[in-house]
Amino acid sequence: MKELNQSMILELIRERECISRADIAKELKLSPPTVSKIVSQLVSEGWVDEIGAGESSGGRKPFLIKFNPRKHYAIGAYVGASRIIVGLADLDGRIYVRRSASRPPGGPGEPAGGPAAIQDTLIRLIEKVIEEAGIVSSKVCGIGVAVCGITRVENGTVVRARHLPGWDNFPVRAVLEERFGVPVVADNDVYLAVLGESWRGAGKGVRDLVLVTLGQGVGCGIIINGKVYRGSTGAAGEIGDMIVSEAAVERSREKGGYLEAIAGWSTLVEQAAAGLKTAAGLNAGAGIAGIAGIKVETGGVITPEAIFEAARRGDGFALDLVRRVCRYLSYTVANIISLLNPEVVIIGGDAAQVGDVILGPISEGVKSLLHSPPPILLSGLGRDAEILGAVAVAIERANPSLAISYDMSIIGAGDEMIAKAGSED
Amino acid sequence: MKELNQSMILELIRERECISRADIAKELKLSPPTVSKIVSQLVSEGWVDEIGAGESSGGRKPFLIKFNPRKHYAIGAYVGASRIIVGLADLDGRIYVRRSASRPPGGPGEPAGGPAAIQDTLIRLIEKVIEEAGIVSSKVCGIGVAVCGITRVENGTVVRARHLPGWDNFPVRAVLEERFGVPVVADNDVYLAVLGESWRGAGKGVRDLVLVTLGQGVGCGIIINGKVYRGSTGAAGEIGDMIVSEAAVERSREKGGYLEAIAGWSTLVEQAAAGLKTAAGLNAGAGIAGIAGIKVETGGVITPEAIFEAARRGDGFALDLVRRVCRYLSYTVANIISLLNPEVVIIGGDAAQVGDVILGPISEGVKSLLHSPPPILLSGLGRDAEILGAVAVAIERANPSLAISYDMSIIGAGDEMIAKAGSED
Repeated sequence: MKELNQSMILELIRERECISRADIAKELKLSPPTVSKIVSQLVSEGWVDEIGAGESSGGRKPFLIKFNPRKHYAIGAYVGASRIIVGLADLDGRIYVRRSASRPPGGPGEPAGGPAAIQDTLIRLIEKVIEEAGIVSSKVCGIGVAVCGITRVENGTVVRARHLPGWDNFPVRAVLEERFGVPVVADNDVYLAVLGESWRGAGKGVRDLVLVTLGQGVGCGIIINGKVYRGSTGAAGEIGDMIVSEAAVERSREKGGYLEAIAGWSTLVEQAAAGLKTAAGLNAGAGIAGIAGIKVETGGVITPEAIFEAARRGDGFALDLVRRVCRYLSYTVANIISLLNPEVVIIGGDAAQVGDVILGPISEGVKSLLHSPPPILLSGLGRDAEILGAVAVAIERANPSLAISYDMSIIGAGDEMIAKAGSED
Repeated sequence: MKELNQSMILELIRERECISRADIAKELKLSPPTVSKIVSQLVSEGWVDEIGAGESSGGRKPFLIKFNPRKHYAIGAYVGASRIIVGLADLDGRIYVRRSASRPPGGPGEPAGGPAAIQDTLIRLIEKVIEEAGIVSSKVCGIGVAVCGITRVENGTVVRARHLPGWDNFPVRAVLEERFGVPVVADNDVYLAVLGESWRGAGKGVRDLVLVTLGQGVGCGIIINGKVYRGSTGAAGEIGDMIVSEAAVERSREKGGYLEAIAGWSTLVEQAAAGLKTAAGLNAGAGIAGIAGIKVETGGVITPEAIFEAARRGDGFALDLVRRVCRYLSYTVANIISLLNPEVVIIGGDAAQVGDVILGPISEGVKSLLHSPPPILLSGLGRDAEILGAVAVAIERANPSLAISYDMSIIGAGDEMIAKAGSED
């Protein structure tokens, strides 16, 4: 009972900016002596701070209590197709240090690649952020890892990761728990990104929320009734397979899915290259200026970023390419809205950096398709969405009473790890 | 506390086929005298029956207790585009009497139509099933109404009903509560149908479930984590607007939505009529036999049923028409699966009567599109899905401890109605 009261009190203090002992007692219907005793203990343990006298409502001025977000820190990591990013944040989700590295190249059998190279990079970055944050490592309560692949959050194993050589069936949670001795949660990057958005991003305070991530792949994270929705086998949000055009069905699924085949970044690049070739053959005509612009931008290599930049500058050819992709993406977003009726749709992933070049056409497209669509917003967090989602689940597993919004039953309580972390404190 | 225990005990008895007092005490961690006292009261009130001695596990043979589903009855009504159906069921969802009538014709301004005609038909059918069931009307604990239109379950008002003349803004709950003096719940037909499927149909025991209803319109009911999902403004599942073909986007939305424009029953009929016209002009050629077959079936009028029947008999032209519609429907079902990863998809609505003619092509289509789709099943309940969903919410509003699976917070407790119903008992 005492522990339950302690959790309730801590939760309430965290929820409010600051609160007095008397108001805690009133709100939780606990006796003032009980509250006082527990608060004193929380103060002595460093969970909360006393921040001086507040406004008096007649009697003695109350001492206000404030949650101490720096009692612990958590690590959030994003292991993506091209980059690995690691951040260290406090319990309020304020990120203090970020470090990143290219994802090591190579595949199974190739000397430079394989699971060990990715693992080593990840571990090195985690050590680096702890060191650079200048905190004692025992202050780190947990690690969350957002993996670009199908991941079983129940045991922290990557099931299948097309873009991470050798990481199929890789037990990332076990490896990191062994190495760092704190609770680790590993989950799909899109699921953690939508959690990050709902905690600290464009979806703050929203109960029914969809995040569409655009880039090499097309993904979707769903929050329903304040919780991440994973589907019956953990495959919810696989919209790379969505069908918005009959023509796409005719194509092979090799590219990753029907939608990805017509609206993924690699298709965008292919179409730009094809246009360039045609124009080079003709040696003249519309589009030359734009394509040349793209080539100049990147020293001959066509990248999605260069295409978006050219479109931003008003280049006609690049604009046509982007508008075509955005048309399919607006169909996709419209379909998601028709089915799920979310309160808000957030566009994130690599697309978050592209900004209005992509948000405008998608929003306009959806508005022309549906009667009263919800707001469609660009993620302001970018890749911090994955980091913050990973931080959120790490905190929650280390200390369930600090839950942000997640289905803990699926992660497992991880009691033995918490005991271990506590003993180092 | 006593009432809480009583609810828990009633719930447990209902869950099990039959159970002894001793097992109740053991499972709920209550003292045997407490259990005995409450069970005796439940027996005297008629909520449970004693059904004689069970197997002895050493000592005295225990008297087994069984829930009495005929303590109360509930009415479930379906107000659809073409028919109004009313059923009376017991607390286990066994339907005893069903009565139906054509939905009265006409629109606002026309003498035969308007809200009163539909309302009168509905009231007449409700009176009829109570009378024919041969029970005292005080045994009816509540009424649920499944409306083919956007309906606010919070206050039981129809917001917009394209197919029910004059029912925009019609307060169906208030009207029926006034008339029958029992709690009434009114909700969208598809939301109640998926609830019916999860209670007594193909989705029994499934936590994440989708029902796709096919007919004049195309709709979708979603159960997530055991509860009906309605979206942020009660518009979840509006898949009549889904885009699975770019060509459909070009068409006007007048018909009701992009998907409905290419895969709704009215489009099917139009295409059959167009084919018939062409063939008549040519006066010969492939398809004549099939079209003639359809015409003969229906005495000159082409109905969806006749087209499906001709397809079932192997008629080539009818088969082509049905396969085309099913191709779009398989894209739709695939899109829903990609996004929501449900445990099972049920095909219902008018399509439930059409059976394998439609289920086969849709299932095959989805299998050719996705790697490992969930089972796609035909509703075995048909229109009883709506009736049973309506019965379920009526029971739940009348007595929350008999909840099937619903979000009661949204319906409102309806305490005053329960008190009223109780006083008549």
